[in-house]
Amino acid sequence: MLLTIKGFKASGIYSGIKASKKKDLALIYSERPAQASGVFTTNIVKAAPVIIGQKKLKSGYCQAIIINSGIANVCTGKQGIKDANEITKSTAKSLQIKDSLVIPSSTGLIGSFLTSHVGKITSSVPKLISNLSESGLNDAAEAIMTTDAFVKISSRKIIIDGREGTITAIGKGAGMISPNMATLLCFVITDIALEKTAQDRLLQNSVNDSFNKITVDGDTSTSDTSLLLSNGYLGNKPVKFKGRNYSKVKDALTEVLCEIAYKIVEDGEGATKVARIIVKGARTEKDADKIAHTIGTSTLVKTALYGQDPNWGRILAAAGRAGVNFNPDKVDLYFGDYRVCKNGMAVMEEKKAAKYLKSKDIEITFDLKSGNKASFILTSDLTVDYVKFNSDYTT
Amino acid sequence: MLLTIKGFKASGIYSGIKASKKKDLALIYSERPAQASGVFTTNIVKAAPVIIGQKKLKSGYCQAIIINSGIANVCTGKQGIKDANEITKSTAKSLQIKDSLVIPSSTGLIGSFLTSHVGKITSSVPKLISNLSESGLNDAAEAIMTTDAFVKISSRKIIIDGREGTITAIGKGAGMISPNMATLLCFVITDIALEKTAQDRLLQNSVNDSFNKITVDGDTSTSDTSLLLSNGYLGNKPVKFKGRNYSKVKDALTEVLCEIAYKIVEDGEGATKVARIIVKGARTEKDADKIAHTIGTSTLVKTALYGQDPNWGRILAAAGRAGVNFNPDKVDLYFGDYRVCKNGMAVMEEKKAAKYLKSKDIEITFDLKSGNKASFILTSDLTVDYVKFNSDYTT
Repeated sequence: MLLTIKGFKASGIYSGIKASKKKDLALIYSERPAQASGVFTTNIVKAAPVIIGQKKLKSGYCQAIIINSGIANVCTGKQGIKDANEITKSTAKSLQIKDSLVIPSSTGLIGSFLTSHVGKITSSVPKLISNLSESGLNDAAEAIMTTDAFVKISSRKIIIDGREGTITAIGKGAGMISPNMATLLCFVITDIALEKTAQDRLLQNSVNDSFNKITVDGDTSTSDTSLLLSNGYLGNKPVKFKGRNYSKVKDALTEVLCEIAYKIVEDGEGATKVARIIVKGARTEKDADKIAHTIGTSTLVKTALYGQDPNWGRILAAAGRAGVNFNPDKVDLYFGDYRVCKNGMAVMEEKKAAKYLKSKDIEITFDLKSGNKASFILTSDLTVDYVKFNSDYTT
Repeated sequence: MLLTIKGFKASGIYSGIKASKKKDLALIYSERPAQASGVFTTNIVKAAPVIIGQKKLKSGYCQAIIINSGIANVCTGKQGIKDANEITKSTAKSLQIKDSLVIPSSTGLIGSFLTSHVGKITSSVPKLISNLSESGLNDAAEAIMTTDAFVKISSRKIIIDGREGTITAIGKGAGMISPNMATLLCFVITDIALEKTAQDRLLQNSVNDSFNKITVDGDTSTSDTSLLLSNGYLGNKPVKFKGRNYSKVKDALTEVLCEIAYKIVEDGEGATKVARIIVKGARTEKDADKIAHTIGTSTLVKTALYGQDPNWGRILAAAGRAGVNFNPDKVDLYFGDYRVCKNGMAVMEEKKAAKYLKSKDIEITFDLKSGNKASFILTSDLTVDYVKFNSDYTT
């Protein structure tokens, strides 16, 4: 559910980019320059707006984010930079704010130029501005969708120094999802005042515990962007790094991002399942991470999930190639509460496990019994619809 | 085409393991103990017969290989070792040779015990032996198939010191294929005499240039085994490591293994395409390898291939997350001879490229223009049939 925040407005409209005529242009606007933190893709190939956003964020402030869907403006060289700059300049002019405070963002097809759409976008800006409202985030969330089947919004309220602050995020993503940094587009706003270093840490930590723990297809997008804007309207003493208030905000922010992350996996292209792969009993968290990631991206595991098939051998085989040294004669494997493998060997709960796998939400626990570190990944199943959909996206 | 080799016989029959009643038990026999080299899976989780085979090969000799399909005897602990030992002992006894010279091999489902089938297998051994013949490799090649749609045999003749020697291989594999070592099952026989160290190097080098450069689903099997047996019947002076004869044998062996490797990708579960992803202009071969592997295992790239869709942005995005530092504004990308991307940007050959992608065999060249090292990977497309098939394999 969307909780609006004083001082933040948004809107979303159709500007003419998408052939489907669905909303494709969004604006998020802060009445005063908001303190801004960002986490971006670590893909070597970066979208033009990612390159610009990283540069502009160095000032620590942002007042508007203009986002288009349909075309990602990636692999577009200098022309791509020029196109994105033209869009932010036009937006800044209409909003009567500095261009340096406007961050561009794009999502959609890679390798297409935005050039022929720049005119439509800039001429849509006045309408976008006149539509701005606190509840306009709903429209904005819709306008940033590409292959998404539903909008992704999450909000939490928390008490900071006796005042009720709010954190609200909108996100998008369904394909080209793999945990390795910011992943996907997510814009978070809050009225809670935060010290800048605390805000940067908050975003990075919460992204690590949410978006960096999901995968749909193992492919990391070139446009991944998460932005956190705080306007300080709550009037609290800015939250410092560490301490009780920091923990409170971190927990709430992580919850918000995890909700968006869950929705992204749930909306994974063609997905019918959301599986949480838990790896525990590892010597290090990195080991647990590696194994969880390898299991969660294995096409054989993901097709077995789709088939509701307790083919746990595939899970062990995936774990065994994760690059982590473990004793395969010691591991246990559970589907929900049903242990299907004990000390590396079959135990006969397969029928119960097969029944359990009919649920939409699946929990698979892989216990190395060699330490006390754990990690997890959220993954979707690999379905016939995924293949149909992705074999026919540009054409 | 199968070229038989004097002194090597084989056979393949149905012993009662497969519900389909297709051939499921094979024997390869050498009249005299053959000098033997092996390359095995590097998966942490290893099949019982892999563990046994690695141990037995330390003697440097092998006279018989007994292979069953249907059940892989993986994740079966001590019982799995006991089952495999019982099978080799019975085979050795019937062949009147030492048990230490009989290597077991299994392929099929992981996590199932072979125990209930051991009796059927051992009682089928006499028939297997009475069926032995030089051309019986055809039946053996059939009997080691699991999800394979066709048998995989390759042979070459080469002249060594004026004598015509032969190399023949049978292989199997269609799923759980990813380059990271021996991969799949492949048994190679030759009458060419080889020095032991030369033979070991030959197999490892040729495996690196063939099986380690293919992928179907990115999943590395727990049973991967490649064995090379030489009986020296050609009577040549044993080929040493390095030198002209070594190169000749290496080239022929690599050709044989590449033919098997190609057939495995061609037979990739549900596959309709075989794509050779060539990465060149890299600073190191390892960099080229990493990028080729990441592109070749990307589900978004593989579904685009299935859709015959020149969605080259997915290829750049995959390359960008390979963990290799390169300049994305410098790269060129070709589908066949058609350049679709120059210096990281779209160039307009897409229509021609789309037509080219209708072929069964596709060549994609990614040029980093930053060095003179290259590598490649052979990959299949990811199809609706792949998902259908793999969501319904055990059940």
